[in-house]
Amino acid sequence: MPNNSTSNLADNLTVALIQQTCSADKKENIAKTIELIRQAQLQGAELIVLQELHSTLYFCQTEDVTKFDLAETIPGNSAEIFAGIAKELKIVLVTSLFEKRAPGLYHNTSVVFEKDGLIAGTYRKMHIPDDPGFYEKFYFTPGDQSSLNNPFAQGFEPIQTSVGKLGVLICWDQWFPEAARLMALRGAEILIYPTAIGWNPEDSPEEKARQKEAWIISQRAHAIANGLPVLSINRVGHEVDESGISKGIDFWGNSFAAGSQGEILAQASENKEEILIVNIDKKRTEEVRRIWPFFRDRRIDQYDGLLNRWSE
Amino acid sequence: MPNNSTSNLADNLTVALIQQTCSADKKENIAKTIELIRQAQLQGAELIVLQELHSTLYFCQTEDVTKFDLAETIPGNSAEIFAGIAKELKIVLVTSLFEKRAPGLYHNTSVVFEKDGLIAGTYRKMHIPDDPGFYEKFYFTPGDQSSLNNPFAQGFEPIQTSVGKLGVLICWDQWFPEAARLMALRGAEILIYPTAIGWNPEDSPEEKARQKEAWIISQRAHAIANGLPVLSINRVGHEVDESGISKGIDFWGNSFAAGSQGEILAQASENKEEILIVNIDKKRTEEVRRIWPFFRDRRIDQYDGLLNRWSE
Repeated sequence: MPNNSTSNLADNLTVALIQQTCSADKKENIAKTIELIRQAQLQGAELIVLQELHSTLYFCQTEDVTKFDLAETIPGNSAEIFAGIAKELKIVLVTSLFEKRAPGLYHNTSVVFEKDGLIAGTYRKMHIPDDPGFYEKFYFTPGDQSSLNNPFAQGFEPIQTSVGKLGVLICWDQWFPEAARLMALRGAEILIYPTAIGWNPEDSPEEKARQKEAWIISQRAHAIANGLPVLSINRVGHEVDESGISKGIDFWGNSFAAGSQGEILAQASENKEEILIVNIDKKRTEEVRRIWPFFRDRRIDQYDGLLNRWSE
Repeated sequence: MPNNSTSNLADNLTVALIQQTCSADKKENIAKTIELIRQAQLQGAELIVLQELHSTLYFCQTEDVTKFDLAETIPGNSAEIFAGIAKELKIVLVTSLFEKRAPGLYHNTSVVFEKDGLIAGTYRKMHIPDDPGFYEKFYFTPGDQSSLNNPFAQGFEPIQTSVGKLGVLICWDQWFPEAARLMALRGAEILIYPTAIGWNPEDSPEEKARQKEAWIISQRAHAIANGLPVLSINRVGHEVDESGISKGIDFWGNSFAAGSQGEILAQASENKEEILIVNIDKKRTEEVRRIWPFFRDRRIDQYDGLLNRWSE
């Protein structure tokens, strides 16, 4: 099986998914994350991926202008800290930061650091959710551009790193097959979803089960449709709704890695902090795409309707 | 919860999925199918869906010009038989026929019959597979048009019937999120996949499990991404490879219905002929799309890359 000569992802890549709880203390959260990153690297991880907005509570449970104080420029203080640990440990690190791009202009941004501590690229969340308890449209401007000329890749553009071309997407993006497909078409070798998803404690056990299962299936299906491994990293723990309107969110963990046939390679618990170590076999993409040649058969001559909002 | 006023699908619809074996005797196969349809209707089914190419063996295991003799025009003898039973039993019937459109021009075509026996619409398979044992590119010209002006809906166009707008796709289509999305955008209320998929008996149990699971997950993911029920109808039984090159195919059954959150509503066995009866609650689509408003958030301004074969 020949290697894809344009790739520099090692055939076997050890990845760590860090699933954690967060408190209201940003410094404490970052310190814990750094400690977990160190442990993950000691276990052999070359690529370490963090959950969505790992430095703070999931502040989008209410619409509160003071929360914009949590945002930082990129580069900025937090970026510097994570750049430092990536460089020290010689790892590729996928972070998820609340970005202040300009006054009144904020993004939910993944920053990927190279082993030398430099920024390999960023991804600004493209699909922004908004539903009770997840008021993200208030906080996050949708990612706005897809330009190959932009050194900071934006839009649905994978990020080239020393461990491969990473298709970094964020949380709500995972419900859109279009996002996964675009990343794959643009050469992504792994899809990565930092996530913050959880249950409304008042939902029935049946509804909770359907939601969690749908979340997993959606992403496994991206692996299948695109013949790619998928990493999904979710937070755990209960976080209160400061407004008191709802019963808060029970973040459901279950961070997982799926292989190129959608098979589960590793899966974390529902309620514990964990470092999930998983080996990704890069040759599988080539092998699976040979037996499932979906890219050969896409009917691009008939897909223009996908650019419509709806067809009346 | 208000009804969608443009729809005429009853809130509760009883559907039957008919999973069967086939022999080399076309008449015998059709007679058995008719008998199963009668039983399904007695159990209350208003919409009855058949597996892919239910009137014959899965003849695509070899490339053999004499197999084109199995094809028929539409309308034609087989269409007339199925029209008759649809009319007699007052059911909507989704069939899957080998269509002769012109000399040397054949399609894998689903014909949907209305309760009065008239053809409600047809769908010619758009994505055509081709891999060892499934030499469909030899037999089937890909469906070629998507035209709202065409009374016989073609391309990714749902078919209006008295039980709702049916997004009929066929087998290999199920691996393409684009097909499901286009049907949903064009108003499909249910996705329906007549299928003929099975195992190479020489594959390992692990590989077989991955394939079957991927097949189910892919389609459940279409339900989730589009907030729609999905029906998938597969054949069962071992069929030999006449060429003797391979060990044939073990069709894996497992016909299933999934709800609008991707939850399994009913699932058939791996190896038995079955009539799977399932109730579809039409209100679920509206309810689920309110809590998972993916159509609201699609980034149609950034999806043009989906029309590319690949991005270099």
